[in-house]
Amino acid sequence: MKSYRKELWFNIPSRRGFVNITPQVEEALAESGISDGFVLVNAMHITASVFINDDERGLHGDYERWLEGLAPHEPIDQYRHNDTGEDNADAHLKRTVMGREVVVAVTDGKLDFGPWEQIFYGEFDGRRRKRALIKIIGE
Amino acid sequence: MKSYRKELWFNIPSRRGFVNITPQVEEALAESGISDGFVLVNAMHITASVFINDDERGLHGDYERWLEGLAPHEPIDQYRHNDTGEDNADAHLKRTVMGREVVVAVTDGKLDFGPWEQIFYGEFDGRRRKRALIKIIGE
Amino acid sequence: MKSYRKELWFNIPSRRGFVNITPQVEEALAESGISDGFVLVNAMHITASVFINDDERGLHGDYERWLEGLAPHEPIDQYRHNDTGEDNADAHLKRTVMGREVVVAVTDGKLDFGPWEQIFYGEFDGRRRKRALIKIIGE
Repeated sequence: MKSYRKELWFNIPSRRGFVNITPQVEEALAESGISDGFVLVNAMHITASVFINDDERGLHGDYERWLEGLAPHEPIDQYRHNDTGEDNADAHLKRTVMGREVVVAVTDGKLDFGPWEQIFYGEFDGRRRKRALIKIIGE
Repeated sequence: MKSYRKELWFNIPSRRGFVNITPQVEEALAESGISDGFVLVNAMHITASVFINDDERGLHGDYERWLEGLAPHEPIDQYRHNDTGEDNADAHLKRTVMGREVVVAVTDGKLDFGPWEQIFYGEFDGRRRKRALIKIIGE
Repeated sequence: MKSYRKELWFNIPSRRGFVNITPQVEEALAESGISDGFVLVNAMHITASVFINDDERGLHGDYERWLEGLAPHEPIDQYRHNDTGEDNADAHLKRTVMGREVVVAVTDGKLDFGPWEQIFYGEFDGRRRKRALIKIIGE
């Protein structure tokens, strides 16, 4: 069994944002030399997400509004987590909806994807340096 | 390390529906000859889901109503994704709640499941041919 | 490839509760002798969750209130699943939001975690004995 590990760093300039990281995951897969196995990609922070969906700007706006409806940022004093001095309780909830991680099959040295699958880093409490982890195992 | 790959095809006749695919995953596992490892099962489309829950008709109706409350299909012009000519923005959101994939342990050649765990394909934008991927790694 | 399997048992005295199981997962990882690979941790019941977030009491209360807003326990007759004699339909939905499983990278014999990541068992229909599964593969 071979394995490969790589961190991706982000510094999203706004509180929330989505970044398509499919090229970086493909690059890591090429570097790994692994042609068959699994790739795990996960946020290393608990107010961020890694998820798979469509790279379509309208949909990303829909996600933004929908998540804000499900777990509003304000008023920040509606959340007991924010009593600790944080203002990011909503980011923990939004990340929960979107998910921490994805596991993707590797076949013939490629991400074994359907036609529209793209991997995104989803930031819900940005304006600071944060990381995602790529870990690949296989042969 | 051994690996095995298989696609499952669906053509759900309605917009939404759930299909218990546990027998097909068990069949793929038997075909693989793998007795110890992980099975990944994921939707290959971004308006569909693979998830684990109960095979109980009442619950499936509850899921349908609950998801429609969280991310209503209509009015379709509430979603900017639908400005592209699609009418399936809600399906992207519903699939996000239900999840893209499951990873299941394989032990002694069986899906290592609790008493009620069953694997479902969840369709949120059907009436066309779509796929799920089964990928198994182990020994 | 090596593998290791362990069950964790719970008997949460209330309907809902969160338990930090990171120490138990670390202990299983040490027992496995695996230094590089993946750990899968999943609920073996469909009204419970395994998820990764912060070990902060205020946030856990926020999760409790937020989930109750998204999928209220009462009135129990709002759910067709409860026509079967159960009263736990909401627990199936809450577990869906929180997720069934996590996959964590193992590097140098440790859980390859960011600074605040902790693994929790989330119970939504407690007051009985239930299980989570730890399965580790790697070398």
